[in-house]
Amino acid sequence: MHFASDNSGPVPQQILDALAKANQGYAMGYGADAEMAEVTARIREIFEAPEAAVYLVATGTAANVLALSTLAQPWQTIFCTRPAHILQDECNGPEFFTGGAKLTPVTDADKMTPDALRAAIEGEEVRGVHGPQRGPVSLSQVTELGTVYTVAELEALGAVAREYGLPVHMDGARFANALVSLGCTPAEMTWKAGVDAVSFGGTKNGCLGVEAVIFFDPKHAQEFEYRRKRGAHLFSKHRYLSAQMLAYLSDDLWLNNARAANAKAAQLAEGLRAAGAEFTHEPQANMLFAALPRAQHQALFEAGAVYHLWDGALDGPADDLVTARFVCDWSLPEDRIRAFLALLQG
Amino acid sequence: MHFASDNSGPVPQQILDALAKANQGYAMGYGADAEMAEVTARIREIFEAPEAAVYLVATGTAANVLALSTLAQPWQTIFCTRPAHILQDECNGPEFFTGGAKLTPVTDADKMTPDALRAAIEGEEVRGVHGPQRGPVSLSQVTELGTVYTVAELEALGAVAREYGLPVHMDGARFANALVSLGCTPAEMTWKAGVDAVSFGGTKNGCLGVEAVIFFDPKHAQEFEYRRKRGAHLFSKHRYLSAQMLAYLSDDLWLNNARAANAKAAQLAEGLRAAGAEFTHEPQANMLFAALPRAQHQALFEAGAVYHLWDGALDGPADDLVTARFVCDWSLPEDRIRAFLALLQG
Amino acid sequence: MHFASDNSGPVPQQILDALAKANQGYAMGYGADAEMAEVTARIREIFEAPEAAVYLVATGTAANVLALSTLAQPWQTIFCTRPAHILQDECNGPEFFTGGAKLTPVTDADKMTPDALRAAIEGEEVRGVHGPQRGPVSLSQVTELGTVYTVAELEALGAVAREYGLPVHMDGARFANALVSLGCTPAEMTWKAGVDAVSFGGTKNGCLGVEAVIFFDPKHAQEFEYRRKRGAHLFSKHRYLSAQMLAYLSDDLWLNNARAANAKAAQLAEGLRAAGAEFTHEPQANMLFAALPRAQHQALFEAGAVYHLWDGALDGPADDLVTARFVCDWSLPEDRIRAFLALLQG
Amino acid sequence: MHFASDNSGPVPQQILDALAKANQGYAMGYGADAEMAEVTARIREIFEAPEAAVYLVATGTAANVLALSTLAQPWQTIFCTRPAHILQDECNGPEFFTGGAKLTPVTDADKMTPDALRAAIEGEEVRGVHGPQRGPVSLSQVTELGTVYTVAELEALGAVAREYGLPVHMDGARFANALVSLGCTPAEMTWKAGVDAVSFGGTKNGCLGVEAVIFFDPKHAQEFEYRRKRGAHLFSKHRYLSAQMLAYLSDDLWLNNARAANAKAAQLAEGLRAAGAEFTHEPQANMLFAALPRAQHQALFEAGAVYHLWDGALDGPADDLVTARFVCDWSLPEDRIRAFLALLQG
Repeated sequence: MHFASDNSGPVPQQILDALAKANQGYAMGYGADAEMAEVTARIREIFEAPEAAVYLVATGTAANVLALSTLAQPWQTIFCTRPAHILQDECNGPEFFTGGAKLTPVTDADKMTPDALRAAIEGEEVRGVHGPQRGPVSLSQVTELGTVYTVAELEALGAVAREYGLPVHMDGARFANALVSLGCTPAEMTWKAGVDAVSFGGTKNGCLGVEAVIFFDPKHAQEFEYRRKRGAHLFSKHRYLSAQMLAYLSDDLWLNNARAANAKAAQLAEGLRAAGAEFTHEPQANMLFAALPRAQHQALFEAGAVYHLWDGALDGPADDLVTARFVCDWSLPEDRIRAFLALLQG
Repeated sequence: MHFASDNSGPVPQQILDALAKANQGYAMGYGADAEMAEVTARIREIFEAPEAAVYLVATGTAANVLALSTLAQPWQTIFCTRPAHILQDECNGPEFFTGGAKLTPVTDADKMTPDALRAAIEGEEVRGVHGPQRGPVSLSQVTELGTVYTVAELEALGAVAREYGLPVHMDGARFANALVSLGCTPAEMTWKAGVDAVSFGGTKNGCLGVEAVIFFDPKHAQEFEYRRKRGAHLFSKHRYLSAQMLAYLSDDLWLNNARAANAKAAQLAEGLRAAGAEFTHEPQANMLFAALPRAQHQALFEAGAVYHLWDGALDGPADDLVTARFVCDWSLPEDRIRAFLALLQG
Repeated sequence: MHFASDNSGPVPQQILDALAKANQGYAMGYGADAEMAEVTARIREIFEAPEAAVYLVATGTAANVLALSTLAQPWQTIFCTRPAHILQDECNGPEFFTGGAKLTPVTDADKMTPDALRAAIEGEEVRGVHGPQRGPVSLSQVTELGTVYTVAELEALGAVAREYGLPVHMDGARFANALVSLGCTPAEMTWKAGVDAVSFGGTKNGCLGVEAVIFFDPKHAQEFEYRRKRGAHLFSKHRYLSAQMLAYLSDDLWLNNARAANAKAAQLAEGLRAAGAEFTHEPQANMLFAALPRAQHQALFEAGAVYHLWDGALDGPADDLVTARFVCDWSLPEDRIRAFLALLQG
Repeated sequence: MHFASDNSGPVPQQILDALAKANQGYAMGYGADAEMAEVTARIREIFEAPEAAVYLVATGTAANVLALSTLAQPWQTIFCTRPAHILQDECNGPEFFTGGAKLTPVTDADKMTPDALRAAIEGEEVRGVHGPQRGPVSLSQVTELGTVYTVAELEALGAVAREYGLPVHMDGARFANALVSLGCTPAEMTWKAGVDAVSFGGTKNGCLGVEAVIFFDPKHAQEFEYRRKRGAHLFSKHRYLSAQMLAYLSDDLWLNNARAANAKAAQLAEGLRAAGAEFTHEPQANMLFAALPRAQHQALFEAGAVYHLWDGALDGPADDLVTARFVCDWSLPEDRIRAFLALLQG
């Protein structure tokens, strides 16, 4: 009954097997391993992007801050939503890596709309050199509130960005969960919609710790390599990053894991809804935000359920509705979900 | 015949087993895993430092730049040797993470002496606020040229630093190799000699990618946590870092690996010496710098040996002496060393 | 009829005379001039703060970013209002000088209230090391919208900051205008209300370009000196900064200029009000925000008036109300104000 | 008898007059003043560079760090001499403004040679992404040791830089002193020799505090403006910077001041030589490095002479030679030089 995060569960055996397989003999370090060449080829193929520059790092924050610092200038502001991971959960990492760029929240909601993005863009560069200049647009897909931008929505946002000449970054920590939710192609969800760079997550969907950074225009490649190295994010024994990513992309593991996680979340959502929970956002991937009376949270916690309250504390009037976040990963045993739902129904 | 680096070889089975063992059930992320508590306890015990603050990161550069940025102010200069990894091999990472501190090479040699350190310190802060201010001293142990500071040497350098009120950092990417070479205790090689912070390497000595940062004074703890997070070096699935480090420190794996690597290097050195190679520095751990006629390098490379030329190129007059770097890790098969030495003897 | 800014007008003759007087013979540079000792003594006296550390720089932004970077850590966020100069008008200077700190707008209004400040503070540090940590509170006095915090308001905000252990900075680009508006002492408006550091403006109130940074606790002194120097804000011919500041503080020039500016603004406000203008904020110092029909702006601009429209453009429906900013400095000739008001009345 | 620095003396009356003249009426701020347009036109004319981008700042360090940060990437190293102001006297300002670039001393001497520059360049980028990358070349003209690069020397250095595709910056804090020493044109001393950006000093040669930054290729213009603003170096009452620079460039004031300073230094050098002083470098502009017996320094200091000892202290054996730095500015009265020389001759 562990719904705290999709970084809480184990990794599939295929990932461990891949490490063991990569652990043969000697290999050149720092990305010159043979597996990395395969990773690059595979990602280019998956994204239908034969020129794409592809790099691996070990954390999602590293992928985001390195990608954004390659796209942004220190005197610019990055457009994102207020709940965005880059704004809330990276301890000023984007500001640090960009050398001082700002982040402008376009909206307090899960998704930005073209109108809201346009208004935010128009709200900057109104004071000449005095204020921050307009910089990249960063979109979280899956959003931080468990919803998924449609392809049409992405295209519309990409069009606004393009109109102002601004690059678009996608924080795809849950890229696969969004992709299988939409049923589109990786190309449709990214460069065809105007996305320039992707943080392509592996960690939350079954890897130990590996994320790809993908630039569809290889002009960013050299700069990114310097930024990764000086950011201390270039692995010497790089083959163990490559091996994870390669296994992740093989035999549809990434898609199957995402489908499993989404399905478990749907099962959980159905049970929560049946139990009377209210959803602030319609769950579309593997993450739910559901409001329950405080007393139910107290009972669930006592019974050993693990998840985060999103607003409000555990103590207080028993009947108050308190929203909680529930995240499912590929590994969650169905019987534990059923056990949780049974608890819920009292 | 792969002597390119101690990041080229495989990891021992114990490390993979530890990952598999850690891969059970659900765990809280970001260092709140149960294994990390064990790691901290174990390192405190090994270092006889019950108050020490202990953190894990995945690269040696991360350990160095995060430790140094915790000890240094942006307007200071860090004293190191010219060959130091932080000066040569981190792509301005220390400058980036410290917010602009300088690095002052105390000496071109492998080791700094107390006199050279004192002279370098005295050479700074001679222009009031105009020049850089004196900052931390950073010592590489094993040095970048394969030698090892004795405990007495470390104590003497620590005394000079203390005299000026400067903190001391040890880049211990090859900490275990130095330790078994000296036969002293970790405490003797660090805090008893005046070292304040250690980059305690695991990656070069048998891990996939894990390094500990150790502060003997826990006052640095909170600041380090913020620096690690905003540097994008805090792992969500942290248990896989912890598991590696725990296995590394169990059953003397770290010491045995280091002893094996040093012994192989000694064997290699003996063979090289017998073949007439000249050593610029007496090898004391697992890294050799030996000069051979260019023609021998050419023959060895053609036969499949892998190592780095340290000065000069592969092309040129056949008789010229060219220095090469040979690094041994724990895994190098003895028969490959013998095969290499056989090649060497023609 | 120039109301664009209080940086648009000339400086009083006393300032030029002071430069001429300082321009005698030889002086040591970089703040070691005799005039600077007088400046420090004078400011300590004015502020009843015999221990205060006092420094001069040449721009208001320099005063702000250097003061804030001395008070804030890179992983913190600075609490200010949304209209604050540090947020809107310093091109990410605070982010640059702090090494990546964020700015959190407490309110969209001109002034923050204790409740709003408390709510903003409580809204941070809710995610452990993941989000930004709580940092300094920065208050603009005069506010960016022409209002003035009362001493009681400052005390209440200072109390909230103190409760959380957060330092307080005052952006006093228009310090004197606020002071004479309140009729209190400098000490009451600053350290007695909990302010730790002040950007004490001279430029907008009659100097060529000089601002003092004042820390009431001298523990910040040494760090500030390094920050000023590496920020390239330490003047070699420092005596010309000192001379300006000394003249500014002599014979009540600073207070008289501020009184004159405020009086002119009051006169202008009265005329505008008589002409039907609406004020979004009650003007309390030397800056007004008044709404007039667009046609009136068009007529005024055509007649040669100079000021900034604050929202909306010059083109559009003639009857729409458009808010403009009018700023008065000490030098504005009364007849020009009367001429402007005459124009206004058509 | 004040030879401490060329920032110690007064400014000529023309500069004060220009401030008074500029102090008329109202002007738009931040560089939009009418005087600035004249400054730009004048500098373009003087440099025969009709496309040049021209900006004003108030300190020489600001000019250097802003120019260099526009030319350098954070992962690069800047090639300069060891005595260079940017290395010794800017408190890590270049590292701060560039976001962490290194400085590589090409030589310990006053001037770099093409061979030394080539060797230094070849010494970098030998480790792929691991080490710093090659960045701009920065030349001090006048050098920090009082010598002047010939045009041929500059051309030769420019050719080496161009060969490697590296931009060239000139720290011209004493630009005019070098120019009149060489008797060449500003164009010959800069862009015709391969210089891309100049810190064109005014402060040391008679201004209160103003330096121009000149880029011969205007592609750098926009970026520089953002860097200047976020560095807090954009003046609101910019007309007082413009006025200084305009007066400085009018009626050959800049050239006449430099000629006067150089002539005084020559007179001083002649006297020192006659008194037996030894010069480590042949003085070519307005700065001398002369060795005298310690007893003579003691006598001169007692008699009220002001200058800096360059190596060694005032206390010690009377007969030891101690090198001192003597700097002459335009204003030094001849009778004070004669008085000093009289003292010298005992």
